Amino acid sequence: MPRNAFYAQSGGVTAVINASAAGVIETARRHRKQIGKVYAGRNGILGALTEDLIDTSKESAADIRALRNTPGGAFGSARYKLKGVEKGGHEYERLIEVFKAHDIGYFFYNGGNDSADTCLKVSRISATLGYPIVAVHVPKTVDNDLPITDTCPGFGSVAKYVATSMMEAVLDVESMARTSTKVFILEVMGRHAGWITAATGLAAREPGQGPQILLFPEVPWNEEAFLARVEQTVKQYGYCAVGASEGLQDAHGKFLSESGLKDAFGHSQLGGVAPMLANLVQAKLKLKQHWAVADYLQRAARHIASKADLEQSYAVGRAAVELAAKGMNSVMPTIVRTSSKPYRWKIGVAKLSDVANVEKKMPRDFITPDGFHITQKCRNYLQPLIAGEAFPPFEGGLPKYVRLKNVPVRKKTGEYKP
Amino acid sequence: MPRNAFYAQSGGVTAVINASAAGVIETARRHRKQIGKVYAGRNGILGALTEDLIDTSKESAADIRALRNTPGGAFGSARYKLKGVEKGGHEYERLIEVFKAHDIGYFFYNGGNDSADTCLKVSRISATLGYPIVAVHVPKTVDNDLPITDTCPGFGSVAKYVATSMMEAVLDVESMARTSTKVFILEVMGRHAGWITAATGLAAREPGQGPQILLFPEVPWNEEAFLARVEQTVKQYGYCAVGASEGLQDAHGKFLSESGLKDAFGHSQLGGVAPMLANLVQAKLKLKQHWAVADYLQRAARHIASKADLEQSYAVGRAAVELAAKGMNSVMPTIVRTSSKPYRWKIGVAKLSDVANVEKKMPRDFITPDGFHITQKCRNYLQPLIAGEAFPPFEGGLPKYVRLKNVPVRKKTGEYKP
Repeated sequence: MPRNAFYAQSGGVTAVINASAAGVIETARRHRKQIGKVYAGRNGILGALTEDLIDTSKESAADIRALRNTPGGAFGSARYKLKGVEKGGHEYERLIEVFKAHDIGYFFYNGGNDSADTCLKVSRISATLGYPIVAVHVPKTVDNDLPITDTCPGFGSVAKYVATSMMEAVLDVESMARTSTKVFILEVMGRHAGWITAATGLAAREPGQGPQILLFPEVPWNEEAFLARVEQTVKQYGYCAVGASEGLQDAHGKFLSESGLKDAFGHSQLGGVAPMLANLVQAKLKLKQHWAVADYLQRAARHIASKADLEQSYAVGRAAVELAAKGMNSVMPTIVRTSSKPYRWKIGVAKLSDVANVEKKMPRDFITPDGFHITQKCRNYLQPLIAGEAFPPFEGGLPKYVRLKNVPVRKKTGEYKP
Repeated sequence: MPRNAFYAQSGGVTAVINASAAGVIETARRHRKQIGKVYAGRNGILGALTEDLIDTSKESAADIRALRNTPGGAFGSARYKLKGVEKGGHEYERLIEVFKAHDIGYFFYNGGNDSADTCLKVSRISATLGYPIVAVHVPKTVDNDLPITDTCPGFGSVAKYVATSMMEAVLDVESMARTSTKVFILEVMGRHAGWITAATGLAAREPGQGPQILLFPEVPWNEEAFLARVEQTVKQYGYCAVGASEGLQDAHGKFLSESGLKDAFGHSQLGGVAPMLANLVQAKLKLKQHWAVADYLQRAARHIASKADLEQSYAVGRAAVELAAKGMNSVMPTIVRTSSKPYRWKIGVAKLSDVANVEKKMPRDFITPDGFHITQKCRNYLQPLIAGEAFPPFEGGLPKYVRLKNVPVRKKTGEYKP
């Protein structure tokens, strides 16, 4: 008898996480002998805890297909870490209770480091409680910091967005620098790993072309060296463009964005490495500056998604179901690069115990010796990940994004407050 | 005998100002009986003052054609106001000296309000000094604040960018709001007019859909009303998205971004209405917030340009040359809307004396009575301006933008320091 599946989105959403959802749902629909319905968690894992399940079988094939083109989390995602017994909670047990009530035998969890750990724990508690669950993690994170897999679905699209945006802003700044802005700073995501910052560097394709400076979280902040480099760059090229990580930190690991700035109300200034750097440039070098903070725009920019990333996001969703159908438990499909030029990849498999809580930072040889840019080796790695365009359909001048019906499944257990 | 033409880009560049350059150059190449070479000013009008002219006849037809696809200013632009006798300068006389030396009989100036005024003055000094110049202004400004013309080339593309970006960010925020960010603020350009802010409102297509709040420079800032509306929106819809103008100001016309915030170095905080509003929301409402500042990304975003805007930008460049060839002086081609549904437009003509130094703000009936959103009338105006896609060609995952040779013209006058 086929058993039902549970799918949930976890953590920060991306431009292509819904493509993974489409991969899971469409593939499950082709495995009806093993897999019954796919229930999605409304607001991620919270939907499982509160038994707020969505019946994806009520969605048309066309709408599920349109998930490929739609950013954000179609079922809602959550930043929520399940409380196990060690935290005085029984949330894993509650999960199993809900899964039992709905005959759920497959657990597909779509997220980053934290959710890989959760997925592993679900598979363990299922063994402990003697309720069989096949748990497969579907990788997703714009931070690109999961181990084993060559890249993380979601990253390639952010990389394409920030490289394109930086390239365009550089053309703007360069053409105005004679009489206007000399220094431009673009702040991008990546609290601990500089992968997205590295991607802004792809916009610099010739010597001297902006961005001339990249600031990675992996390289301790050095005010003097930064200012000297900015001054030198403006002297040499007439302008200076900077790609800066939000996670920029000093030699003691203290975030620059938490350096105690106060606003007029006396509150700590929130975030904003870019305005801080811009202020510094203005104050110390007396150079006219501008800055941008892309924030959610970068990870939601489905309109400029990478085709390679989109295809991989779909592929890991599909592979997760295929692995589960074969009974492979406690694993995660990975992207395996078989060639860079031309770019070729295939799907591999990693054990969740090898993935959970391991963070992949930028290798030192991806960063130039002076710490201010990416190496050719890094370019060779990044370049294929932004390849190809996959524009969504447009209607009335705007992308046409699908909104699912998200029909709830009738509850079977008692009320539960997480 | 044909006389040469001078073309210069002025003020902030856009995603499509080079399409106007292509319109001027390609059309001049088809009017060889009246127009000789087109010389472009390197770094805008500064190129005329310093006799730093670019010979566009050295560029291939393919490269000029590719200007349609390339953002920024291909010849360099400048923020520079010519000093006339009233300012103790003789820069208009210097311009005529350079024009005489190069037999320049046509002046095409591609810019906003200020440059329309400059263009008018060039045409007047030419009469005063008895050196005939046909001066035609080519409209361009993302601020959309030129009078008479239905819209300003450059605006439609920014509008499409901010509406798309807001729509994508809203999908992100909405799907995470249960456990994460409740309030998202996107700051956009428009120091005195709220046109770009209004365009973010196009992302809200259904009641309750974000952005639920727009903050226009035309509506005096009211902290209490804003906070109450944010709180109410989060209560009702689970999240609140805000489109905020950089030019937000209080009832006394004082910019919020100049409200005396100091950073750790004791310097005034530069720009950033979005982080200021976000801080306020966090402090007063204790709601988790995120913010983005698009800055140059919005006006350089050729990758998501509006097809309507691109065509109009090209058309005003072409029309400027056609008007000049007919001997029409001291004028500006305009966009005349003949129908909204379906959208139809044609080129008209305005006298520069009616354009110079007149600023078109948002009409009051484009803003809802409560001041927090756009009306249906405003939507009807904006909608056609973002219509159609005009993606640039891509290569290696990034847009393929042209870089001209920009060959200098041999100098004929003595050195001049502006």
